[in-house]
Amino acid sequence: MIKRSEEMASVDRLQAIPLYHQIFVQLREEITSGSRAYGSRMPTEEELSESFGVSRITARRALAELADNHLVARKRRVGTHVIYQSPARPIQGSIDQAIESLISFGRNTQVKIHDFETVAARAPVTDALDLAIGTPVLRVTRVRWLDDAPLSYMVSHVPDVLAGAMTRAALKSTPMLSLLEQGGARIGAASQTISASLADAQLSNLLDVDIGSPILRVSRTVMDVDKRPIQHVLAHFRPDRYQIKLDLQSAYS
Amino acid sequence: MIKRSEEMASVDRLQAIPLYHQIFVQLREEITSGSRAYGSRMPTEEELSESFGVSRITARRALAELADNHLVARKRRVGTHVIYQSPARPIQGSIDQAIESLISFGRNTQVKIHDFETVAARAPVTDALDLAIGTPVLRVTRVRWLDDAPLSYMVSHVPDVLAGAMTRAALKSTPMLSLLEQGGARIGAASQTISASLADAQLSNLLDVDIGSPILRVSRTVMDVDKRPIQHVLAHFRPDRYQIKLDLQSAYS
Repeated sequence: MIKRSEEMASVDRLQAIPLYHQIFVQLREEITSGSRAYGSRMPTEEELSESFGVSRITARRALAELADNHLVARKRRVGTHVIYQSPARPIQGSIDQAIESLISFGRNTQVKIHDFETVAARAPVTDALDLAIGTPVLRVTRVRWLDDAPLSYMVSHVPDVLAGAMTRAALKSTPMLSLLEQGGARIGAASQTISASLADAQLSNLLDVDIGSPILRVSRTVMDVDKRPIQHVLAHFRPDRYQIKLDLQSAYS
Repeated sequence: MIKRSEEMASVDRLQAIPLYHQIFVQLREEITSGSRAYGSRMPTEEELSESFGVSRITARRALAELADNHLVARKRRVGTHVIYQSPARPIQGSIDQAIESLISFGRNTQVKIHDFETVAARAPVTDALDLAIGTPVLRVTRVRWLDDAPLSYMVSHVPDVLAGAMTRAALKSTPMLSLLEQGGARIGAASQTISASLADAQLSNLLDVDIGSPILRVSRTVMDVDKRPIQHVLAHFRPDRYQIKLDLQSAYS
């Protein structure tokens, strides 16, 4: 049986926070982080109520709260679309050098694999990987270590059709991108969104930090040379142990 | 009289945390954020005690704690050097497009200028701008607003010799980089370190968030075409309102 990917789209019925607001918070994050782009169509009330397992009324209130916050516009017959535009344009970087850097990061750190399982994809992984809801995806969670202390916690999703050669054993010694390349994928581009959040109980435990510690958060989608998404990673870094460096130079230099 | 730039290198004698540990925490941040590069020379005990206004013994204990944490190595006659190496190599990006993006960010947001004053430079601004301690620098603090809510708080330092045409009034309507360019500077490169931290009382107040909220933190040094540093900015963003986007593509595409 295929399990559902739980951490990506779920509500917690035991929390004091209303369900519609939990959905609002999650969708707001997807919009402001760029996972849901300006102009893109939002799920309908029906789709939302199905994917979160809530009533249509709850789904409607979540969409209404997004509209009240000027993140989406709702139009009869046309549906709901994202109207939030990030004030800054993306920075352009070189994929080849970045992939090399990611792979070398993998080789210079130790990895502990936590989960390794095929699950039914749901939002926002379905959006990131351009898959239908329920498509089988390989979900891997890993903690990277350096000098005997944890550095990052990563939740990765790869379409099951590309995950053929990927095994738990192979991932212990080889970075995931190298395995994808060995499996025949040709990496062409990637888009990253860098943000900050706080450690919850799970991250506190995995990264050995206090609850409420700052976390550097990176959402990355890697595409092949034909622009098909082949991997989505949500990475959480301890900022006291890892920062992102960005060197900007003139194209001619 | 030239005031000292307070927030960059200071200890708080009213805090319960020992002075040497406050200095340690600040220097550790400068090392792991890359402001103090691998292999670079650390200040001597004498220099530290002068720039923080503490005793030699306190300065020595701060350096010893850095050594205990494998961040620096202390060698007789040779001095203290940074031995911390970030596990990831920097990502390379295009400066022209990034500067355009920064300037457009400035034009698409509103700015409120808080401080605008000439101060005597001290570490780590002296290191970032390659200036002697005490050199006059223009220090500007600003909050950027979008849609009637604050987005970022920035502390900028520019060598006083380049700040000639910069006025409080000009900065209200024109991004600082545009003013530097209008003053004759030719922007050639920039290095950025992206990290995460928590809002303290000051940031909570300036950015209208709770104390302890996550903050996306960017330290950026801009250099001219001759690799001379012309501006250092420490920017603090509200991650619910701003994220950094990074698009990676093949150089040939």
